[in-house]
Amino acid sequence: MAPQPEAAARIDAVLARIDADLPEALERLLALLRIPSISTDPAFAADCTRAAGHLVEDLAALGFRAELRPTPGHPMVVAHAGEEEAGGRHILFYGHYDVQPVDPLNLWNRDPFDPAVEETAKGRVIRGRGASDDKGQLMTFVEACRAWKAVHGRLPGRITIFLEGEEESGSPSLIPFMRENAAELSADIALICDTGLYDDETPAITTMLRGLAKTEFTVHAANRDLHSGMYGGVARNPLTVLARILGNLHDENGRVTVPGFYDGVDELPDALRAQWQALAFDHAKFLGDVGLSIPAGEVDRTPLEMIWSRPTAEVNGLWGGYNGAGFKTVLPAEAHAKVSFRLVWRQEPEKVVSAFRAWLEAQLPGDVTVEWHDEITGSPASVMEIGDPAFEAARAALTQEWGKPAAFIGSGGSIPIAGYFKTILGMDSMLIGFARDDDGIHSPNEKYDLECFHRGIRSWARVLAAIA
Amino acid sequence: MAPQPEAAARIDAVLARIDADLPEALERLLALLRIPSISTDPAFAADCTRAAGHLVEDLAALGFRAELRPTPGHPMVVAHAGEEEAGGRHILFYGHYDVQPVDPLNLWNRDPFDPAVEETAKGRVIRGRGASDDKGQLMTFVEACRAWKAVHGRLPGRITIFLEGEEESGSPSLIPFMRENAAELSADIALICDTGLYDDETPAITTMLRGLAKTEFTVHAANRDLHSGMYGGVARNPLTVLARILGNLHDENGRVTVPGFYDGVDELPDALRAQWQALAFDHAKFLGDVGLSIPAGEVDRTPLEMIWSRPTAEVNGLWGGYNGAGFKTVLPAEAHAKVSFRLVWRQEPEKVVSAFRAWLEAQLPGDVTVEWHDEITGSPASVMEIGDPAFEAARAALTQEWGKPAAFIGSGGSIPIAGYFKTILGMDSMLIGFARDDDGIHSPNEKYDLECFHRGIRSWARVLAAIA
Repeated sequence: MAPQPEAAARIDAVLARIDADLPEALERLLALLRIPSISTDPAFAADCTRAAGHLVEDLAALGFRAELRPTPGHPMVVAHAGEEEAGGRHILFYGHYDVQPVDPLNLWNRDPFDPAVEETAKGRVIRGRGASDDKGQLMTFVEACRAWKAVHGRLPGRITIFLEGEEESGSPSLIPFMRENAAELSADIALICDTGLYDDETPAITTMLRGLAKTEFTVHAANRDLHSGMYGGVARNPLTVLARILGNLHDENGRVTVPGFYDGVDELPDALRAQWQALAFDHAKFLGDVGLSIPAGEVDRTPLEMIWSRPTAEVNGLWGGYNGAGFKTVLPAEAHAKVSFRLVWRQEPEKVVSAFRAWLEAQLPGDVTVEWHDEITGSPASVMEIGDPAFEAARAALTQEWGKPAAFIGSGGSIPIAGYFKTILGMDSMLIGFARDDDGIHSPNEKYDLECFHRGIRSWARVLAAIA
Repeated sequence: MAPQPEAAARIDAVLARIDADLPEALERLLALLRIPSISTDPAFAADCTRAAGHLVEDLAALGFRAELRPTPGHPMVVAHAGEEEAGGRHILFYGHYDVQPVDPLNLWNRDPFDPAVEETAKGRVIRGRGASDDKGQLMTFVEACRAWKAVHGRLPGRITIFLEGEEESGSPSLIPFMRENAAELSADIALICDTGLYDDETPAITTMLRGLAKTEFTVHAANRDLHSGMYGGVARNPLTVLARILGNLHDENGRVTVPGFYDGVDELPDALRAQWQALAFDHAKFLGDVGLSIPAGEVDRTPLEMIWSRPTAEVNGLWGGYNGAGFKTVLPAEAHAKVSFRLVWRQEPEKVVSAFRAWLEAQLPGDVTVEWHDEITGSPASVMEIGDPAFEAARAALTQEWGKPAAFIGSGGSIPIAGYFKTILGMDSMLIGFARDDDGIHSPNEKYDLECFHRGIRSWARVLAAIA
């Protein structure tokens, strides 16, 4: 899978340039980190716009046609380059320039917006809010483009850069903006740099993201709370009814008992299974970190498989009756629950929630009714077409940079942007990021390892060479 | 069961006196009702003492050796008479002179402490706080004594009257006072006037009171709340664990599944069963009043049997996870519940709670622990020895007064005083009261039907004649 000699020479020159330019790249990142672009706090709205403007200027200097595009919230940055490149893939790169709030400020070892490189026992780190999430990460891509341009006088292909300023505050403008500019933003594949390495040394491409569906409801029995001295034993207790039903949401083998729940759930392809097994996921540590020792869930599945490629049905909230101090011998009139489902493969959110509702309703005894509080909402899983040769090419490029086999991994959680790229813009995403678990994103003393920044830039240079 | 001719003449004279004296008896009750003896509000402490003193004076005028006995709270009234009577039963009568607060005051049709007789569509009622609970009821007994004394120059037997002033505020002084004065207060049987008729026209003696035991606990799994995207499917969800266990607290036939739970639960004696069946309890109305139509609970038991003579296990509170607005896809670290048991016959509270705890603990999967929050507390059921001829004698007396067969009934709830009389003073209680369901005790516009007051006095005269 090594590049051809000519291509190798092309990329080697870019990598050398990246190495030589690292001090300046670092200075450029620090300049961006100094802008307190906290998107959720209106007091920092001007700073968000300033950060976007800063990036527009920087991208324009690289030869992008870069624009600051207004939204009802913070502006988007959209930049295009390389339209003259024929034949290659059109790449959309996504990152976000906004950051999380910094409180509690007293837990920081420095001003979060006065970033610096610090020496630590584990090496040099870039300390400051946004160093990892996501300014440091998005700058790895920008710096790769810069080095390529410096060496070869042009970018390695047709690239659109799309940077958001509301990712940390719910992305209210994102979907409307993508819908209104779908033609402009559609590309052959999206690259997203907002995730992490598989472990401290192993690069990864996230190719499976679980979806999410949820439902909230109330089970009603009597028309008012009853005294258990008067009605206990004779009147239906909705707490017991709900407990019985939700207690049977999984069978003895950990499988969800709702009929049709597993429709559209595929088995993991052998190649992917082999890769995941090679990761030697430490499930004892994974559970031990949170005080557990025994995997729950489906008895015939590995923990990694369960988290990345199996669906779940979980009770996120359940309540009813008296929960204050002391005792109240009440038979409550109603009981409440919130239930959510992590979805995989081709599971459809609407079908899953509808099946759950029908399953629950079929089990209600007489006199008991259920009230569903929400419209059925949810997002399906994102499963990338890893048959596209770009995925194997990017994997080889990452493997070469990090000296360890890069993995196609999954994510138990949802990363909405990947789903939107698929449903609104019709393209798959390749999620490649260089964050480490101890980066402390969203926390005090956020950092990005200098090694991650450096190798991240080099990784993108290689990936671009491989797929653009 | 009609009394002997001589006895009939004795009682007829008393009843005639009661009828003639009714206007004066009513005035005496109104005088007591004018004293705002709200025990829970310290602002009315002097009024509580005044009410007790008023009763001591009244009882002394009847020939009782009556005393106001101090406690750390409101005083007790203890009065003795008839020690010279040989051979008959020593009777302890219990009532309480304190009343509930009156708010919301704006819902009253008159000043709650300016009582009066009002004409209503359903007859004449005594309106005012405490008219039914419990000043009107306790005065039925006092007036019966007064009439007897007026006609015969002495009481019908040895009688101790014991009136409490803290019943509506948790009776904090009651147990210590009873323990310290056990010898003085012990009698052959207790008469308690703080309950109601079975229905508007049917007198009743409550002979079975369910006991109560309870336990509160937390089920723990992980050492912190987990993100369901990260851990959903693999980490144990304590809400699901608790739901599964509590959902199986009853089997398909409504029986409690805890081993040993039914130890000490007797079958209803045939005679009592026949009486209860004769009551023709309207379970459709009973359930319909609270919006239900189908009896839950044990499939082979009647609703009345379930409420009065069968034990229950009920979840009074269950909660865990996120219950605020919107959704949080959390796997909670813990789940909580409050469970209580209504006890019957010879069930022992400690054994029942211990059995429940063992049953629950045996079902916990690995990694899941339970924390029990409370000492085991509870009170056993009170089941009177209705083989004592006093019960049948009293029943005959009530039947004669009301013209309908009086019933031995049960009570689904607990009336602690009856249990204390049994455990501290070693005597059974006969709970006879004349309240009607629409009396509005504890509510605005409390009333006591003049008919209930009048017939209540006559009832006690007959009962005393029959059993003293």
